[in-house]
Amino acid sequence: MNAAFSHPEPVAAILQAIRAVVGPRQVPLHEPCFAGNEWVYLKECLDSTFVSSVGKFVDRFEAELASFTGARHAIAVANGTAALHVALLLAGVRPGDEVLMPALTFAATANAVAYCSAVPHFVDCEQRTLGLDPHALRDYLQSIAEIRSGQCFNRSTGRPLRVVLPMHAFGHPMDIEATLAVARDFHLQVVEDAAESLGSTVGGRHTGTFGSLGTLSFNGNKTITTGGGGAILVNDSALAKRAKHLTTTAKMPHRWEYRHDEVGFNYRLPNLNAALGCAQLEQLPGLLRSKRRLFELYAAAFARVSQVHLVAEPANCSSNYWLQTLLLDEAVADRRDQVLAATNDAGLMTRPAWTLMHRMAHFSACPRMSLPVSESLERRLINIPSSAQLAQSASA
Amino acid sequence: MNAAFSHPEPVAAILQAIRAVVGPRQVPLHEPCFAGNEWVYLKECLDSTFVSSVGKFVDRFEAELASFTGARHAIAVANGTAALHVALLLAGVRPGDEVLMPALTFAATANAVAYCSAVPHFVDCEQRTLGLDPHALRDYLQSIAEIRSGQCFNRSTGRPLRVVLPMHAFGHPMDIEATLAVARDFHLQVVEDAAESLGSTVGGRHTGTFGSLGTLSFNGNKTITTGGGGAILVNDSALAKRAKHLTTTAKMPHRWEYRHDEVGFNYRLPNLNAALGCAQLEQLPGLLRSKRRLFELYAAAFARVSQVHLVAEPANCSSNYWLQTLLLDEAVADRRDQVLAATNDAGLMTRPAWTLMHRMAHFSACPRMSLPVSESLERRLINIPSSAQLAQSASA
Repeated sequence: MNAAFSHPEPVAAILQAIRAVVGPRQVPLHEPCFAGNEWVYLKECLDSTFVSSVGKFVDRFEAELASFTGARHAIAVANGTAALHVALLLAGVRPGDEVLMPALTFAATANAVAYCSAVPHFVDCEQRTLGLDPHALRDYLQSIAEIRSGQCFNRSTGRPLRVVLPMHAFGHPMDIEATLAVARDFHLQVVEDAAESLGSTVGGRHTGTFGSLGTLSFNGNKTITTGGGGAILVNDSALAKRAKHLTTTAKMPHRWEYRHDEVGFNYRLPNLNAALGCAQLEQLPGLLRSKRRLFELYAAAFARVSQVHLVAEPANCSSNYWLQTLLLDEAVADRRDQVLAATNDAGLMTRPAWTLMHRMAHFSACPRMSLPVSESLERRLINIPSSAQLAQSASA
Repeated sequence: MNAAFSHPEPVAAILQAIRAVVGPRQVPLHEPCFAGNEWVYLKECLDSTFVSSVGKFVDRFEAELASFTGARHAIAVANGTAALHVALLLAGVRPGDEVLMPALTFAATANAVAYCSAVPHFVDCEQRTLGLDPHALRDYLQSIAEIRSGQCFNRSTGRPLRVVLPMHAFGHPMDIEATLAVARDFHLQVVEDAAESLGSTVGGRHTGTFGSLGTLSFNGNKTITTGGGGAILVNDSALAKRAKHLTTTAKMPHRWEYRHDEVGFNYRLPNLNAALGCAQLEQLPGLLRSKRRLFELYAAAFARVSQVHLVAEPANCSSNYWLQTLLLDEAVADRRDQVLAATNDAGLMTRPAWTLMHRMAHFSACPRMSLPVSESLERRLINIPSSAQLAQSASA
């Protein structure tokens, strides 16, 4: 028995396992599914001429998002980045503050901090959830933070540590409950980046509704899409009112006067995009079922593949399985780019993790803890084709 | 002959003149007109599943905008505010700079300056164009500015005066050529806020193409709409490339890697909204003809109304007549709110000028010159119903 036999070629094995699920055709990473009232509502919206900043679909989309997630209020906005920006401002982030966030995330999480003229402070992840590690965060804060007059400060930079901003990576819920406990002990606000986790829950409660504010994204690659769009989830009614005000140019209500009471943003979701969102929300339960079924199909296909692990939802959580995620064993981590090349060459779109935030030149000077798990995940992580339709066609 | 007879009641006279043009029904201020391929392109976009951040309608919309305006490049973005923000950054605006801009404008113009952590510096307007007065600006700069090492500074604040940001109010072209001459003499960049002036030209050249960068808006109340949307117009190819990069999260091109080389923005126009824009652009020449015809109808109706003046395009300019604009004589300026109340009560939607920027608490400490013309225009200006359809139904 030679080494090649006991550790079979991971590149070919992964290709074969994906093909076993998705069949012989070209497959994108994630494709939207328009199988319901999308067309009907778009037409209704166009016929009403209310395609822009106000309209019944915006109101309805917000009400239905609140109902689905269990948040008291949902404020529809232009995209997930806009939602994060305003959520951070409303959580009290001020210029010169530090915001604790995972190094393993999409650039928007760190960019939104930068828009507030605040400083991202990078925290390690845990492999179990792919999200921020609250236990590592607690240990770290015990060594670098101090509380003065009820406010947490970074002892070495002297800057306020205002907010912790966890992110539910690829739809898998991170350990939000332990994070809330750390935040309580260190006087931090929690803003939850749930851009990827619409439909994901922890103990039955929807991600994005644990922190003071949460954010969603409806970009074209997400579980449901509005073309471009996002939302802020919030329970506090005063914050919800502020969120609506700030995202709609901070105009003061008046029959005809154009007067604004602060620097506001044009972060409105057009009614046209909300119309698409209303139709997509109707499809969401079925899409979530299909995406779970796709996970099961991949789990069966990858059970036979050694040195590769398909990431499952953490205990006591339900993942929306937005992007199906493989982790290579460390022993074959150096094959990652070969897997990416071979799959993409074969018309199966795959992608690695985001380059860790602290590796980008513009964030390289930001404070950070040691990031061994994030760095390991970055080396080993591969997302594979994840559209809900794949489960439907596979089971047909 | 009593005073009432020589100066007839302006409120009733204005109401009557508007009714003479628009007929007896309820009329909004400005309603979009979807009479072409809007329906076809939206359906085609949905069927393609490319509704989001990339797609053929985005490329086509950008190419057709460039062709229509004569700009070498057009970059489609989420809205006019986003376009302004990025145009100012690309014109070199840095934190602590001052940006010269009219006090009479929509809040977005000043907000975009604030997003750059720069300071709006308010300049007076001229009644002839409703836009920034380049002659008043020149006189003012001669008294407050100094050039050091090729850079203009405000002598009293010590801050760099980096950019002048004129705006073509209600579609009427401001005196951009004289403004360019002032900018040259004082080493200022020119960014043109053409949010309201798609289709308006000066000497045959499209507004928004005179400065280093120009911006457009396709909000629901504009001449054409994409639901929400905007564009950056620019001739310099390197700036155009930077504009596309900055508005699309500054992601570096790579087959699968997610790496960004600066803090970017999620300011993309979704393909769904661009599809609507492509259909609307096809309608634009006809809409412009109708809006000009509506001006002529109002001009005839208001010719008989004393103490009220309908604003016409400046000499050597073609206005898109986005919002038809009345100016009350100073003698009856105190009747403005009565006119607004009477018309809106009658179902004819009208509005005053924007509250001048320096009157808002958050901009009240910004530097400004004396603003007598802006203040006079603010007291006397009323926009009346302006939809293109009004000319079509009136002439039918």
